[in-house]
Formats: sequence, structure tokens, C-alpha cells
Amino acid sequence: MFKNKSKLIVPGFQFAAIKCGIKYGNRFDLGLAWSEVPAAAAGAFTTNLIKAAPVVISKKRIHSGIAQAILVNSGYANACTGRQGYRDANLLTSEVARILGASASSILVASTGTIGMTLPVNKMMNSLPALVKNLSPNMAPDFIRSILTTDTFPKVVYTQKVIGGKNITLFGTAKGAGMIMPNMATMLGFIFTDLAIPARLLKPIFAHAVEDSFNRITVDGDTSTNDTAVCLANGLAENPLPRGRSLSQVESLIGNALKELARMIVLDGEGATKLVEILIEKARTTREADLVARTIANSPLVKTAIYGAEPNWGRIIAAAGRSGVRINPDRVDIYFGELPVVRSSQGIPGAQKKAIPLLQKKNIKIRVNLNQGKSRASILTCDFSEGYVKINAGYMT
Amino acid sequence: MFKNKSKLIVPGFQFAAIKCGIKYGNRFDLGLAWSEVPAAAAGAFTTNLIKAAPVVISKKRIHSGIAQAILVNSGYANACTGRQGYRDANLLTSEVARILGASASSILVASTGTIGMTLPVNKMMNSLPALVKNLSPNMAPDFIRSILTTDTFPKVVYTQKVIGGKNITLFGTAKGAGMIMPNMATMLGFIFTDLAIPARLLKPIFAHAVEDSFNRITVDGDTSTNDTAVCLANGLAENPLPRGRSLSQVESLIGNALKELARMIVLDGEGATKLVEILIEKARTTREADLVARTIANSPLVKTAIYGAEPNWGRIIAAAGRSGVRINPDRVDIYFGELPVVRSSQGIPGAQKKAIPLLQKKNIKIRVNLNQGKSRASILTCDFSEGYVKINAGYMT
Repeated sequence: MFKNKSKLIVPGFQFAAIKCGIKYGNRFDLGLAWSEVPAAAAGAFTTNLIKAAPVVISKKRIHSGIAQAILVNSGYANACTGRQGYRDANLLTSEVARILGASASSILVASTGTIGMTLPVNKMMNSLPALVKNLSPNMAPDFIRSILTTDTFPKVVYTQKVIGGKNITLFGTAKGAGMIMPNMATMLGFIFTDLAIPARLLKPIFAHAVEDSFNRITVDGDTSTNDTAVCLANGLAENPLPRGRSLSQVESLIGNALKELARMIVLDGEGATKLVEILIEKARTTREADLVARTIANSPLVKTAIYGAEPNWGRIIAAAGRSGVRINPDRVDIYFGELPVVRSSQGIPGAQKKAIPLLQKKNIKIRVNLNQGKSRASILTCDFSEGYVKINAGYMT
Repeated sequence: MFKNKSKLIVPGFQFAAIKCGIKYGNRFDLGLAWSEVPAAAAGAFTTNLIKAAPVVISKKRIHSGIAQAILVNSGYANACTGRQGYRDANLLTSEVARILGASASSILVASTGTIGMTLPVNKMMNSLPALVKNLSPNMAPDFIRSILTTDTFPKVVYTQKVIGGKNITLFGTAKGAGMIMPNMATMLGFIFTDLAIPARLLKPIFAHAVEDSFNRITVDGDTSTNDTAVCLANGLAENPLPRGRSLSQVESLIGNALKELARMIVLDGEGATKLVEILIEKARTTREADLVARTIANSPLVKTAIYGAEPNWGRIIAAAGRSGVRINPDRVDIYFGELPVVRSSQGIPGAQKKAIPLLQKKNIKIRVNLNQGKSRASILTCDFSEGYVKINAGYMT
């Protein structure tokens, strides 16, 4: 899928991956992304109080605003592994730093996989020299694969744009699939760009972009212990300091990349067959709109109805009614796409039948108008199929 | 299953049901329970802001503490049906009152089924004379069937107990299956007893019993628009006013009946194969214990893991960590049954393997110790199988 994208090359970045045997099967499971020069760095991490060791370590290290590499693995989450988990993550990143001749504090680390088991650290340590040796500007496709678990396709964005008179390249990748719920929904998401931008500017732009993308999606309402989103900008494009119009262009560049990745994560939700946007309008506050949207987006009854293309709006209005928001029970309007199906909390005769073909599509938009204010919010979600159950009832063993 | 239970006879109560063609197939769909004398009455109703017409009407009527009959139907919920919904429910109960020679205000009404369609009121009106004519002390088994939708078995309790020197009979029934989540989880639940008790005593006892039973279960986290639980006590047992020990006996009688029905509702959750108790201990407050318990009990990842007998405690601790409660991330202990699997937020070596046979049983207990206080709470839930998806992706059409 990314063969024609210049091999996903970003000036100054090198990538590598290796099959080190952490994960079942003959798959890439250990990856490294490296910037030839120290890069401005911004990150966002899980809000779950149970945080994996790599999250705690990366969060601390990225605070400086500078990072040069990200070591990733899939198969084990290195979460709930106590002091051993921290020791392992520190050991691995120190070794990477040593081989690269960099400072350990500039090496970020991210893990995804099963919670509670310690990393096979010897196996990983032994693989690190070969991993670093594999580093190459055109190995991003392997790196991408090293973070996947139950994903069915790799999630990639690749853009080139002229900003401030310079050609800026951005490459982003993410893994998703399950345990996906705002806030910080991505599991893992990485953006690599040669944009020149100081960390003090990059951080708020990235935080805002995460809020509008990874934090507005849900697959199953479960928030991971390992969610990590990181942006490295190494400055090799040598563009002038973004300001005014060029700052807006940077915001769009990063914002759109994250939105595209977020969309792909939902599209590849475990067992998902449909992409669903839930849009709440005319709420009293954005917070209330958001809460109603999330309650609908996570309702198993709504999600199974969408899977079955059932125009069962009763489940949508019932979810709104239990959301905790004081909606007006007699004033709710609901649309499937542009088709009104409920007006003033009552079904529109004949609309349900017309809605069926709309719900059979792959992209579905549900709009709920609360008619009590001026605020709005939207959430991207997916449907709920037997596939989700199959994947999650037999993931570990 | 209740052939040997004296035909579920309660002195002074008569029951009837009829196949009136509301529901698909040749099934009982309209039922009536009648007390020969006005009965003390207590009720509990959905907390969903979207309330069905029968809920609003019954809630108002039961306020007096006196009721004499309950008219029930399945197939249509009479929710989100606007003024027509109220007109229909009023018309039907007025007609029942007229035929029975009772006051309309003493006739309660409850509906279950699809939201948003108006009742086939002519069909129902035409069936009422025959329904009333069918009333008989031994027709409870038919009445029970008239409230079922996706339930796979009828839920019945039948007890006789000597209280205050008199033989007291209690018969209770419920429907459950889907859209089951506290608060007020039952969809429909009815208790009929010949106990003599004034409404002012019955109301707090019933409210407390509901809190400890129907409000402590969840199937899918969705709260119905129609939840209705009602207790009628007609006094024909002529026991003295319950007080002291006999009051405690009444509390147990009603409390245990509701708990048993609640348990059966979860056991018959849509697609459920296992009954799961989530017990949170040593929380700072009962409210926090309850919130952690509900978050775990509703996590699709936890529920699918239990379905697959996967000892994946990482999903349990991750759900606790995203519950909104400020748990101490390093001090969580988890037990499957009596088997400790997590201590101080770390897996106990070898425990996962030992846990598999425990998770293959039909009754599963998960205990989470937060080690930060003295409060506890428990929630009954079920697992999440492909069956739930199948039922709910193809329920309407």
C-alpha cells in the first residue's frame, strides 16, 4: 500500500525492525526509529492510572522537548511488571543509546501487547546490535509492522507540503485495534517530520491535534495502559520559524495526519465492519455533547444494531437518556446521514425502512440534535460484530 | 419448571394472559395480574430520562400506595410514542378498570419491546374482555410468559413462610435479557404477596430490596426506557403489623425474592454463558467501590475474556485504572475465586495457568482489593459472547 510513497522516506530519519521472537509467529516485534540529529519532541500518554513502565519513562524523558529515537516492541505491554518493568525498559534504552552513541534520556520507549508479563529482556538485548545495524532511511515499512498486534492493516500517513518556502515531509504510523477509548485512544502513534519547529511550539500544536483525533475515537470504551503518541521534528527542512500563515499550515499538517491515523484505527477496530460518526448538536455545553456522543458510541446495543443494519433509533435515544446529561426527553431529533428518523423524540413514519440502505453502507453518520443549546461534539466509532468477541475471547492463549 | 409449586397460587391474586398478536409468532403478549382486594403497592422505575408512557403513568398511580392490577404487554415498549402513547396506555387501563369494576387509577401498566412504535391498540382493546374473563388463581404461568421477549427461560420465585404466626405466600417474576444496567435493571419485575403491610412500610423495604438486587446487576450497561418493578401486597394473610423480628423477616422475604430474580436475569443475559460476580474491597468509599465494579463489569474486554476463559487480569486492572476512581496504581490485588492472581499490581507467577479451570466454570467470582480504605461493593454481570451480537444485530427485522 505504500510502495509508491518514496519508501516513506523522511530526511534525517532511519528505521529498523527485527523478528526477535517476542511475539507468536514469525513477525516483526522489535522496532527502532532514529533521527540523525536530536529532534524537537512532543508526546501524549494514557490517562489510565495503571500506566506501563515505558509510558512512565517516555513521559518523563520527553518533558525536555528533545528526543532522538523510539524503541518499540509488540507482544508484551510491560505493564503491571513492577520494578522489573522499569529496570528492563531502562536497560534496553541504555543499550540502544550506547550503540548509537546517544544519551539514554533521548531514547523513548513504547510497548504494546499483553499486560502483566515481563519482557524477554535477554532475547531483546541480544537483538539490539542487529536492530541498530538494520537502521536505514527506507526501512519504515518494517518499523510499521513491528508495532502491530491484532491490526489487520498497517496505518500510515505520508505527506509532503511546502511550508515557509521549504518542502516539508511528514510520515506517521499508528497501531490500534482494541482497548481503544479516549482519552488517548491510539495505543501507539508516531509522527516523524523534518519540520523545523521548537518544542515549545510543537507541544501545544501536538496536544491540540491529539485532542481532535486520537481523543475523539472509541472502539470498545476500554483505555489502554500503554497509549503513547509521539511527534519528532528534526528540523532538517530548515524552514523558518513557523508563524502566522505558516504556523496554521503546520497545525493542519500535523492535525490532518493524526485525524487520518485516528480514522484508520477505528476502521480497523477489532471485528469492525463499519465506520460510524456520532455527532451531537445543540447541546448546552461541549462537555455534555461529548458525554452523550461517547455514551451512544460505546453502547453495545447501538453498535450491534449498526452491525446488523437495524434502524433501531430507540437504542440511540435510550443511550442519550442514560448518559447522565439532563437532556430534554421530548425534544430529541435523530438523523441517519441526512435522513430524519426521529423528531421531538418520536419516530417519523416510514423513516426506519428508508434508513436500512443507509445503515448497510460502510460509512455511517448519526446526528443527534438535543435542541437545548449551541454546543456540539463528535466521536468516531465502529460497529460491534461477532469478530470482536472471537478476537477477544481467544487473544492470549 | 414450576409445575410443583402449587401452580404459583397466591391467595387473592388472579392472573391471565392472551395471544393477541402484538408479538411475532404465536406467543402470549398481553397479560393481567389482579388482586381481588386493593393491595398495598410499591414501585421502582427506570432512571433513564427517556421514559416510556407506561412508566410515567404507573409511577404516578403507584404514588398513592394502593393498586389492584397490572396490565402488561410485550412486543412494543410504548416508548417515544408521544401523546399517542399516553392516550393508548390510559385507554387500555380505563377499559380494564371498567370491565373489572375498579378505578383506573388502581390499574398499573408496563410494556416491553421495541421502542418507538405505537401499540396496536384496537387489537389490544378487542382482546381485553377475553383477557379479563381468563383471570384465574392458577394462570400465573401464562402471565409470566406474556412479559418475555428475548429471555430463554421464565424467571420465577415462589416462597411460603410463617411470619407473625401466619403463612405468607410470595410469588415473583421478572423479564430480563438485554438493555440491562443499573440503576433499575430489571426491565420488568413483579412481586405478588398476601402479606398484610401498609404501603408506608412496604415502600422503603421494596426500595431497599431493589437497590440490593436489580440495581446491582448489569448485562450490557444499557438502561431501558421501560424498567418497572412493582410489589403488590394484598393483606389476605391477615398477619399482624410487621415489627421487630417479623419486620426483618419481611425484609428478607422480599429482599431474597428480588435477589433471586436479579440473579436469574443476569444468568439469562442475552448470549450469556456465565454468571460473574465482581466484588471490590477496601475502597475509600462505597461509591468508589461501586464505580470500579461497574466499570469492570461493563468492560467488553473483560467480558469477552471471561467468555473465552482467558485469565487476562490485565484487562481487569486496566478497567479499574480508567474507572475515574483515584486508585493506587501499585496496590491492587486480584483474585479469581479464592486464587490470588495479582498482588500489588503485579502478576503472581504461575497463577494464570491455575486460573483457567476456575474461569471455565459457570459461576465466576472476581475479587479486586484496592487496599486504600474499608468500603466494598459488588455487581453481578455475565460474559459477552457472539450470541449477544447475533441477538442484537437482528432483533427488529
